Amino acid sequence: MEEKVVKAIQDDYPDDFAWCYGCGRLNESGHHFRTGWEGENTVTIFNPEPEHTALPGFVYGGLIASFVDCHGTGSASLALHRKNGHEPGDEADPPRFVTASLHVDFLKPTPNGGPLKAIGTVEEIHPKKWKVNAEVYAEDTLCARGEVIAVVMPSTFAKKD
Amino acid sequence: MEEKVVKAIQDDYPDDFAWCYGCGRLNESGHHFRTGWEGENTVTIFNPEPEHTALPGFVYGGLIASFVDCHGTGSASLALHRKNGHEPGDEADPPRFVTASLHVDFLKPTPNGGPLKAIGTVEEIHPKKWKVNAEVYAEDTLCARGEVIAVVMPSTFAKKD
Repeated sequence: MEEKVVKAIQDDYPDDFAWCYGCGRLNESGHHFRTGWEGENTVTIFNPEPEHTALPGFVYGGLIASFVDCHGTGSASLALHRKNGHEPGDEADPPRFVTASLHVDFLKPTPNGGPLKAIGTVEEIHPKKWKVNAEVYAEDTLCARGEVIAVVMPSTFAKKD
Repeated sequence: MEEKVVKAIQDDYPDDFAWCYGCGRLNESGHHFRTGWEGENTVTIFNPEPEHTALPGFVYGGLIASFVDCHGTGSASLALHRKNGHEPGDEADPPRFVTASLHVDFLKPTPNGGPLKAIGTVEEIHPKKWKVNAEVYAEDTLCARGEVIAVVMPSTFAKKD
């Protein structure tokens, strides 16, 4: 599995919204998760670092939760952007989402040593609220299932108290 | 809030199980979450790093999910250890748990700039399966609620395929 997301929604987030530790391209210390379309599904691919362990040899659950989280907000952004007539790379600023809730079921220990792939299906449950279901694979093994409820970022979020 | 967990269960995990990126004391790159008792509740305290951002000024949700995850497994370990007649620091090896499922509701943007505190309540739902409910506070503000289903680590988990 040597796939790569070619056109990622995170590449198009406005600079002010590109500092996320999970998926912000401007956060030098972060994971740089990148999410794009694969047909009608969304996809995020990531190679965990050797230190991202639960036990030696297995991926840390918190890293998988982080992966699902940003896959969720990225997928929702892709879907609303498409609904608005846009695709990644077409110059329009995509909508930015935040996570209202995150759920992960860890189905199997996830081997650390190759890329993880999250495959998402996106459903609009309200114009500003989207549900993303995700399956996380290591090679061909389904290791985790996730659900993210993502909401369009409130304007108040960008202002710190 | 300058509290510190004095006796943490993670300090007592056997060396083989102390490599978790979230809470393993031997993982030099990890977060080193530490969980102890505070009366009948469990407590984990953590100072996010400046780079752990969602947007500048706010803590990354995946970091909060990681915090809840290890708080959950640590809390379950504390509870079963106590049921077995042990407290952290008394020389007995504590049981090690893994996460079966993780749920986080993000209630408010979490300001980054001070410690986070998770307060847990633990419930046995099966001798090998415990539920941990967590509230995550930044100062006095409840920012997130979490639920972890933790199960005693299967013996197969420690062996990589």
